[in-house]
Amino acid sequence: MPYINIKVTDEQVTLEQKRQLIAGVTQLLVDVLNKDPKTTHVVIDEVPIQNWGVNGNQYLGTKK
Amino acid sequence: MPYINIKVTDEQVTLEQKRQLIAGVTQLLVDVLNKDPKTTHVVIDEVPIQNWGVNGNQYLGTKK
Amino acid sequence: MPYINIKVTDEQVTLEQKRQLIAGVTQLLVDVLNKDPKTTHVVIDEVPIQNWGVNGNQYLGTKK
Amino acid sequence: MPYINIKVTDEQVTLEQKRQLIAGVTQLLVDVLNKDPKTTHVVIDEVPIQNWGVNGNQYLGTKK
Amino acid sequence: MPYINIKVTDEQVTLEQKRQLIAGVTQLLVDVLNKDPKTTHVVIDEVPIQNWGVNGNQYLGTKK
Amino acid sequence: MPYINIKVTDEQVTLEQKRQLIAGVTQLLVDVLNKDPKTTHVVIDEVPIQNWGVNGNQYLGTKK
Repeated sequence: MPYINIKVTDEQVTLEQKRQLIAGVTQLLVDVLNKDPKTTHVVIDEVPIQNWGVNGNQYLGTKK
Repeated sequence: MPYINIKVTDEQVTLEQKRQLIAGVTQLLVDVLNKDPKTTHVVIDEVPIQNWGVNGNQYLGTKK
Repeated sequence: MPYINIKVTDEQVTLEQKRQLIAGVTQLLVDVLNKDPKTTHVVIDEVPIQNWGVNGNQYLGTKK
Repeated sequence: MPYINIKVTDEQVTLEQKRQLIAGVTQLLVDVLNKDPKTTHVVIDEVPIQNWGVNGNQYLGTKK
Repeated sequence: MPYINIKVTDEQVTLEQKRQLIAGVTQLLVDVLNKDPKTTHVVIDEVPIQNWGVNGNQYLGTKK
Repeated sequence: MPYINIKVTDEQVTLEQKRQLIAGVTQLLVDVLNKDPKTTHVVIDEVPIQNWGVNGNQYLGTKK
């Protein structure tokens, strides 16, 4: 406890960027709610861009 | 807002079918709840059939 | 199979609107992917507006 | 895009703390992945402590 | 790690039943995958029956 | 109904282990809550270890 799920489109997120997301959101939970980082779990889901829609269109289709 | 997550088994859903799912569910939220499509996000998850269970069996095992 | 989760802010969604969301998204999965409605599950989550953020602000704070 | 879901136990998280979580995690996605905050959605779920388990026990039972 | 989410309709699940769900699923992960129970988290969501649909109808409407 | 989602790190979970997870958690819902297995759905997500964080670190980094 807590559990944080981050969903982003799958666009070459690097190992280092994932590390920063995990460290950053864990620290945020410590700072704001005084949670124990040892029991703070973070899961990053990388969603294929053709599987993400916004404004009724595939994200794929909205990029230039 | 809103956020819709559609989970289906991974069985060759085409790009066009994904497009129809995203367009259709976004329109549904507009029609029923008058939501703004610009902030309506849809994520489709394709789950390997060996990872989906029903009736205590893998979906894999229940297909003919 | 499939499983659809619809998250909207908790703003007096009526029983009838929920009925329409469930019927509509189920029909969509039938039409687009030929899924069996008997095994199509829909869960609607109504999220308190103070718990939903966009653009770094609580949705609560972005409404007029 | 992106979508972040934060699940914490329901223990009197204040409006201000929720504001800080939403602002903080949105900024993190901007800093690390250069995401657009306008399309970054955050949903906080407050889970009743009797519904959260760890180490095979209800969180309820593990508190002093 | 791991994280298990159990969604059931909100029909007076007792504290003892929740305890059994948490203990049982944690033990399952230990038995099958040799996971550490100390880092195994379980979250139970109780969904209002009017918010759960199957076969295109609210679960509410399908009960006798 | 019900719906159970099991998230584990992607570390060569076998087809047989998935079968046991699905059978076991379905039986648990039958035993504890008298649910109908025919409508009990289980989805297993295998998360790349570099995408799972605990204690502010990638799970990847915490393994020996």
